[in-house]
Amino acid sequence: MDDCVFCKIIKGELPSYKIYENDKVLAFLDISGDYYGHTLVIPKNHCTNILDCSYEDLAEVTKAVKLISNHFVDNLHFSGVNVLNANGESAEQSVFHLHFHIIPRKSNDGFHTYPNHDDQNFDLEKIAKQLKLD
Amino acid sequence: MDDCVFCKIIKGELPSYKIYENDKVLAFLDISGDYYGHTLVIPKNHCTNILDCSYEDLAEVTKAVKLISNHFVDNLHFSGVNVLNANGESAEQSVFHLHFHIIPRKSNDGFHTYPNHDDQNFDLEKIAKQLKLD
Repeated sequence: MDDCVFCKIIKGELPSYKIYENDKVLAFLDISGDYYGHTLVIPKNHCTNILDCSYEDLAEVTKAVKLISNHFVDNLHFSGVNVLNANGESAEQSVFHLHFHIIPRKSNDGFHTYPNHDDQNFDLEKIAKQLKLD
Repeated sequence: MDDCVFCKIIKGELPSYKIYENDKVLAFLDISGDYYGHTLVIPKNHCTNILDCSYEDLAEVTKAVKLISNHFVDNLHFSGVNVLNANGESAEQSVFHLHFHIIPRKSNDGFHTYPNHDDQNFDLEKIAKQLKLD
């Protein structure tokens, strides 16, 4: 898409700090510089997020997420990774081209990546009936 | 694995509030009840996380993540989803059977699922050279 920042990065019209690339996928450092090694993995085919992507592109992107995560843990000095992905404006997605965040982790790095939220005392049985996919 | 809580759920030895199931994958509500509709998607084959799972199981699980996310947005009353996944103790993984969290979202629900962290003024060019997967 002409006005998509990530498509411009794929086409080389904008620079990026590349971590991995193959025919289907590109991975590069998140420009925010908030976490050391914070990497974004995107499909070369434009789609907005997992809601409209093809199953093929999703499989290619998550395959690359695993490949890079294994590289970070097996070959480098990390012991884990968080994988994060936002879909839709309401989910705090900011760039509307599918991307998975990889945040590499070390023991006692002091980060907290899980969005803690108070327990709501939900009726889970009722919710499961409301949401079930038959 | 005998001592894995999620394997016990798959085998029916522990109860769960099921959202979706097929031959390869099970999805059920997170027992914490922290977010309405918070769903976990797991492979039926035991693996610890994305670091040791097979590419096939990862593809099956993420395919189900998309299927359920589409169901939540297309058929129900949500407008987005966050997908979260922790790999390794250092990444705050708590149950050591691969799982992806889906947190369904609505506009102005007041949640904040992105782990904000101060910018570190990193040298991204240097980091990319350190982390690149060739």
